[in-house]
Amino acid sequence: MPASTLATEQFTLDVSSWLNSAPVSIESLRGRVVVIETFQMLCPGCISHGLPLAQRIHRTFDRDEVVVLGLHTVFEHHAVMGREALEVFLSEYRINFPVAIDRPVPGQAIPATMQRYGLRGTPSMLIIDRDGRLRDVTFGAVDELALGARLGRLLAESPSELSRASGETISSGPAFCDIDGNCA
Amino acid sequence: MPASTLATEQFTLDVSSWLNSAPVSIESLRGRVVVIETFQMLCPGCISHGLPLAQRIHRTFDRDEVVVLGLHTVFEHHAVMGREALEVFLSEYRINFPVAIDRPVPGQAIPATMQRYGLRGTPSMLIIDRDGRLRDVTFGAVDELALGARLGRLLAESPSELSRASGETISSGPAFCDIDGNCA
Amino acid sequence: MPASTLATEQFTLDVSSWLNSAPVSIESLRGRVVVIETFQMLCPGCISHGLPLAQRIHRTFDRDEVVVLGLHTVFEHHAVMGREALEVFLSEYRINFPVAIDRPVPGQAIPATMQRYGLRGTPSMLIIDRDGRLRDVTFGAVDELALGARLGRLLAESPSELSRASGETISSGPAFCDIDGNCA
Amino acid sequence: MPASTLATEQFTLDVSSWLNSAPVSIESLRGRVVVIETFQMLCPGCISHGLPLAQRIHRTFDRDEVVVLGLHTVFEHHAVMGREALEVFLSEYRINFPVAIDRPVPGQAIPATMQRYGLRGTPSMLIIDRDGRLRDVTFGAVDELALGARLGRLLAESPSELSRASGETISSGPAFCDIDGNCA
Repeated sequence: MPASTLATEQFTLDVSSWLNSAPVSIESLRGRVVVIETFQMLCPGCISHGLPLAQRIHRTFDRDEVVVLGLHTVFEHHAVMGREALEVFLSEYRINFPVAIDRPVPGQAIPATMQRYGLRGTPSMLIIDRDGRLRDVTFGAVDELALGARLGRLLAESPSELSRASGETISSGPAFCDIDGNCA
Repeated sequence: MPASTLATEQFTLDVSSWLNSAPVSIESLRGRVVVIETFQMLCPGCISHGLPLAQRIHRTFDRDEVVVLGLHTVFEHHAVMGREALEVFLSEYRINFPVAIDRPVPGQAIPATMQRYGLRGTPSMLIIDRDGRLRDVTFGAVDELALGARLGRLLAESPSELSRASGETISSGPAFCDIDGNCA
Repeated sequence: MPASTLATEQFTLDVSSWLNSAPVSIESLRGRVVVIETFQMLCPGCISHGLPLAQRIHRTFDRDEVVVLGLHTVFEHHAVMGREALEVFLSEYRINFPVAIDRPVPGQAIPATMQRYGLRGTPSMLIIDRDGRLRDVTFGAVDELALGARLGRLLAESPSELSRASGETISSGPAFCDIDGNCA
Repeated sequence: MPASTLATEQFTLDVSSWLNSAPVSIESLRGRVVVIETFQMLCPGCISHGLPLAQRIHRTFDRDEVVVLGLHTVFEHHAVMGREALEVFLSEYRINFPVAIDRPVPGQAIPATMQRYGLRGTPSMLIIDRDGRLRDVTFGAVDELALGARLGRLLAESPSELSRASGETISSGPAFCDIDGNCA
């Protein structure tokens, strides 16, 4: 699905369950900017960069403006990254924002939401604007200053004013582990 | 001069000379956001935090949107932080954005611009909006994500729309060395 | 078992299996200094501090002088830190020194080697001298300069000269998660 | 002067004055290991790496075993790195181990001790053994674990036992600014 198409429709999560929270719908968050950090609990780049950044966003912004969600997109080693293991992981790392488990697709390695939005690997950061549209997808390292500026600009948009979405990407850092198992 | 007053008038620099550039007037930068990093070349917090952050801002943003300037506000040890020493310092640290020297005031330790805007010490970061008004003054550590968001919001303002300025401060980190020589 | 006793006898591992290597006996390493990094794969302090330090030791010293071993001492959440999960973990983190799994004790949370040497939690670093005796046990953060000096002194000892062991501890940093689930 | 020669004779400092201390002679420190950190106060690599490491050594070791000295080896920009500027620098950076000023040589850029031992630039770390002999000279970055091990081995030597000196170098990191003004 091309980015140009995505940006004109509502972003939706297709997930099997939630931790740290009752189920959250993106629709219910209309009017706020939503940051979705996709990760795998045994992905080194997620632990060293992606999740700590998500936690800083969660602490920095007012919850009425920016909401942070986690999305566990397991595409490898499924047997050892199940729900019970994820629960231990979230507890040990004191991650307390809502985390969804991307819906497994029978017979396929890549889960549903990850497939739908063509994510390349973990960590990936998705940014949803106040109108519920996917505006950015960034795989790998994210520059903190540029990310802050992007969020500031999205916060300055009036939901009703939106006529187009840029699809612009914040940055594309050095690759982490991708779907094909290539790590940089 | 109270912040409420400052925010309604044009910010001006009162400086004795410039390095890395011909003289720059804030007025000539109308329409852009301007970040002014005030520092002293022998201030440890300036070297470890303030100036590296200013360099990251300088590298991250398009020069048509955000302009970074340095301001050498010497309020102590004047004899060893003169222009010749500053030139060596800027060269060694590869700082290549324009840097002004705050105008010395005869018989007083604190230079002119620092006095005018009541700066508490170094490093301090000043942010000027697209309309040339001083919007933020932050002494000490600055949170990068919050700073990025602040710049993003200021960039989203239309110069003509501005009716009031918030004077809101990004953050007030642990004190560095202030005018009274107190360090935290 | 008191430290004074331990230091006069040969250190032994009581483990159920090995990864990255055929079984290693401490006895076979006589003449070398051995560093044993004990960890749990879902322990944040192990991932951020303990294991990276073990990897630096592994890279820095000649294998004829200092040998690094890992010891997976699972004392909590056993169901999600089994051998298969550990294999994925070691592969993702590119840990390639030999790692043993501490022998589970039926009906008890704490495994055999961890019990025998009274380890307080993870990460813990054990240092074995050239004569096969346990000389240091450090729980939590380890100062790199002090650790280097300790290893340098132990390397300077002649195996046969050893008449006594000091039992001196390198440092005792801020507590990580201990057996009772207390984290600092 | 070749390293092989240096290691058989007593190391001596040829300096013009001392800060933080009365004059210190290397001879008076016989029986201890001495670390001499050479630096220039406006050298970025000295401020970010060399001097912080020297301060950690100073804090980590017992003064009866390892003594840290600073040596200000000014080979460029002499006018702005004089004694008065150095005093301010040491105070601002809270460096409180003894610091000597390498003796200026009339008509030459490179001062006396720097010339005598053929130092390549700053920062350089010199290590003197318990018998007063120069054993290591390292220009640029120093690996902390390897440095600790080197100090541990030197501390394990009996002063009288020394028959030869290895001249071995701890590491040779990425170049900082050298005498010819080349920086990496």
